Amino acid sequence: MERIGFLVFEGVEELDLVGPWEMATMWHTYADGPHCVTVAERSGPHACAKGLTLSAEYDFTTCPQLDALLIPGGFAAFDEMANETLVRFVAGCASDDRPVLSVCTGSFILHAAGLLEGRQATTHWKAIGRLRDAGVEVVEERYVRDGPIWSSAGVSAGIDLMLHFIAEVDGPEAAAIVQHNAEYYPQANVYGTQHLADGMPAYMNSLAKR
Amino acid sequence: MERIGFLVFEGVEELDLVGPWEMATMWHTYADGPHCVTVAERSGPHACAKGLTLSAEYDFTTCPQLDALLIPGGFAAFDEMANETLVRFVAGCASDDRPVLSVCTGSFILHAAGLLEGRQATTHWKAIGRLRDAGVEVVEERYVRDGPIWSSAGVSAGIDLMLHFIAEVDGPEAAAIVQHNAEYYPQANVYGTQHLADGMPAYMNSLAKR
Repeated sequence: MERIGFLVFEGVEELDLVGPWEMATMWHTYADGPHCVTVAERSGPHACAKGLTLSAEYDFTTCPQLDALLIPGGFAAFDEMANETLVRFVAGCASDDRPVLSVCTGSFILHAAGLLEGRQATTHWKAIGRLRDAGVEVVEERYVRDGPIWSSAGVSAGIDLMLHFIAEVDGPEAAAIVQHNAEYYPQANVYGTQHLADGMPAYMNSLAKR
Repeated sequence: MERIGFLVFEGVEELDLVGPWEMATMWHTYADGPHCVTVAERSGPHACAKGLTLSAEYDFTTCPQLDALLIPGGFAAFDEMANETLVRFVAGCASDDRPVLSVCTGSFILHAAGLLEGRQATTHWKAIGRLRDAGVEVVEERYVRDGPIWSSAGVSAGIDLMLHFIAEVDGPEAAAIVQHNAEYYPQANVYGTQHLADGMPAYMNSLAKR
């Protein structure tokens, strides 16, 4: 695998993109992993969901061949699933069963590109019902792999997904090197009572006992 | 607390900044937390450590009053600790005991600004020895608060630090709302054997048993 693309669009959720980006670029830097690039319908600056401005290096016409694509989410993903140019680009990236990964509501863009037909996937806990209503078999895990399609739960779960992807593609020691350099040994404190609400994904059941 | 600044500089480590940014902007969006802005010596685009380009909204002269400042790290922090203009800005932000937070090697900028005199702090595990050699009392926790100075371990630890900061400043239910919306319930898998190396910070001792 030589090159991973990270999809940028107006209103993308910052951590959805930058969490997996940090893991994948550490893979490149410390464990000879693939080169990482950003790509959008038009190159240049984009305003993210929470006000950060970040730039896409390539547009869809100048982007070099990608061996994998990561699709972040955010509320704007519900707009982008109707963007035919973007959806066509995503579908093209998935040809030859090349891996496509989504974070959070990025899974709705996967679905719009026809990539979730007969496949399991997941999304942000807030959007699980909506993805099920769209006819997708949602699995309530923090991340799910079904063949070449990898998807994660909301926002921060993209970090866990990318580490898992690295471990599967390049072995657990490559993932360990990334985890170590990113010092990703979270304390996993659970604050307050929000996690006890109804409708939480099944993977969180163990938290309810804390 | 009305406004938190996030310091940007050339070569800043992406997740050091965006992890806490996502938590703090979710605090603003979902729990009436402070407004978040980016600030750098010059406004506009900056190349980050791993190749992402992100823009700073304000420069040091146009930045409105900040009630707290977050300082990310990266190898470039070792250059910025010699940047007198930047260090003076940081020291100014800390006046009246306003909170200053650092992630990873951002603690070296805190030290250059004289903010770690007689205080406990931490940094990326790779830099603990260097921070001790500089005369700082390093505590090997994932994050440390000493009065108005809050510091975290490497890269991803800034997420944990900002959640802790929110819980202390605004109560655990505000932190819970942020954690819930960011779906920050990490599985905390530990891959491979890197975490068993010598010289790991004390907070990781419990991992060695896994």
